[in-house]
Amino acid sequence: MSALTLLDYASVLIFALTGALVASRQQLDIVGFAFVACLTAVGGGTLRDVLLDRNPVFWLGNPDYILIACAAALLVFFTAHLVESRYRLLLWLDSFALAVAVPAGVSAAMTMGQSGVIVVLMGMVTGCMGGLMRDVVCNEVPLVLKQGELYVTAAFAGALAAVSVAMFTGDPLIVLAVCAATTWALRAGSLAFGWRLPAYRARPPRS
Amino acid sequence: MSALTLLDYASVLIFALTGALVASRQQLDIVGFAFVACLTAVGGGTLRDVLLDRNPVFWLGNPDYILIACAAALLVFFTAHLVESRYRLLLWLDSFALAVAVPAGVSAAMTMGQSGVIVVLMGMVTGCMGGLMRDVVCNEVPLVLKQGELYVTAAFAGALAAVSVAMFTGDPLIVLAVCAATTWALRAGSLAFGWRLPAYRARPPRS
Amino acid sequence: MSALTLLDYASVLIFALTGALVASRQQLDIVGFAFVACLTAVGGGTLRDVLLDRNPVFWLGNPDYILIACAAALLVFFTAHLVESRYRLLLWLDSFALAVAVPAGVSAAMTMGQSGVIVVLMGMVTGCMGGLMRDVVCNEVPLVLKQGELYVTAAFAGALAAVSVAMFTGDPLIVLAVCAATTWALRAGSLAFGWRLPAYRARPPRS
Repeated sequence: MSALTLLDYASVLIFALTGALVASRQQLDIVGFAFVACLTAVGGGTLRDVLLDRNPVFWLGNPDYILIACAAALLVFFTAHLVESRYRLLLWLDSFALAVAVPAGVSAAMTMGQSGVIVVLMGMVTGCMGGLMRDVVCNEVPLVLKQGELYVTAAFAGALAAVSVAMFTGDPLIVLAVCAATTWALRAGSLAFGWRLPAYRARPPRS
Repeated sequence: MSALTLLDYASVLIFALTGALVASRQQLDIVGFAFVACLTAVGGGTLRDVLLDRNPVFWLGNPDYILIACAAALLVFFTAHLVESRYRLLLWLDSFALAVAVPAGVSAAMTMGQSGVIVVLMGMVTGCMGGLMRDVVCNEVPLVLKQGELYVTAAFAGALAAVSVAMFTGDPLIVLAVCAATTWALRAGSLAFGWRLPAYRARPPRS
Repeated sequence: MSALTLLDYASVLIFALTGALVASRQQLDIVGFAFVACLTAVGGGTLRDVLLDRNPVFWLGNPDYILIACAAALLVFFTAHLVESRYRLLLWLDSFALAVAVPAGVSAAMTMGQSGVIVVLMGMVTGCMGGLMRDVVCNEVPLVLKQGELYVTAAFAGALAAVSVAMFTGDPLIVLAVCAATTWALRAGSLAFGWRLPAYRARPPRS
């Protein structure tokens, strides 16, 4: 099994869990859980594949992805009430999903021999768009755009790190590991320690 | 005219009527009516065609679809005030659109020889995504995700019924009729009699 | 540089500025600015290219578009506080972006020899969809659907004017200039003088 396939599986599984958790906040039924889980799980990768004209779209060529997402939805439907703070769990699961999906996007674009800018963008699209679709459809404030948190920034830094490291080594495992570690470190640091970039202020204090 | 073409026409027409009804709730002008009607009418089928890489997208190959959607928008613009309860009408029209669009998606995927999982998914995408786009763009609570109603479930059951029946008969008309009937029966039963699946509850009563 | 390339560049630049302005209303950080700017800048054209199956999508073939959008985001991040009324600026910039993006869509479809209906639709998709994505993602009321303003109507009229003029002249510069001028005149007239079409009223006065 190639690194890309493995990353796709992992990101589908974890994103599906986050989708099902959002569905639990909306008190949907079991099919609604599966629907949101699948949308979140394959949304970013689907957009990546449509943009890169990869054919077929990854989950059309292998329906296992959908079955995994449905299994994740089922699991959350029957166990989410055991969790103390579902929103906290959602945030942390989402950080892992991001840290797996960004290298998945990077890997897909690199395999096709795309330029550095495109590789970075595909990493960001794959990492951020599934969660964005989940939040837009379920009418939550998109995590992607939450003020004062690193999210798109973490995806950007991870993808950039991958492109930088790829200049020095041809080993995809090292490249993807650096990508995942950078992405997750920044996102987790933002969640745990409040790391952030300065946000825009309409009236900044004069320096 | 093939069954698929006929189903596409019917689903475009009925979804366009629902789109125009939502536009009337937003008090848009006539071009706004046509815009929302077209988005709703072709949204699901377009996503299906892009995912399956069908070329060209169905309404690009035959602009009649767009003209039908615009005619539907015009009709609603001038007659919607005659209707007692527009929201009730919207719900019921939407149920017919769903029951026509799901077999349209199923039929397109079957014609391409896709596997059972993909056929079911394409039925759900074609049936649910146009209405979802309509509701997201117009800032309505998506019908797809409304609590305590069968919607995605109806689409899922209809598509599953089609795949099951297709194992026993090669006649597409029977397959598509079973699909449409199952979908509509579940959706209509949910609207008329409150049929539902148990929804997720954060603190379920102990059994 | 072809007229289409030039139009794409200009619409990317101006739409990116509007995206960054919306990001400033959401008080995002610098990467958030770039994200919303890129989404707005390439959203409409990307949808156009995916629908028309143009390959590769315009910004994948030439990453300069993304760099331009990021530069625009940077500019707005550091200068937006100098502007008296950011929303007013946003509306007017958006009108210019619309007037450039509609001919960009029209031009792409005409180059491919599409029929008149498709050309008009691609003009509308390219012009309206980027701004719509921006507003949906950032949870603003979509400009596209704002009551009592010409927006989709302006795009429609501009694209229709282009198709009409193209029957009499083969010079793409004239066609695209008429398209841009018509679009902008209607949109600007709506902003400045309140031009509008009659909107739907649930209970219209009897005539």
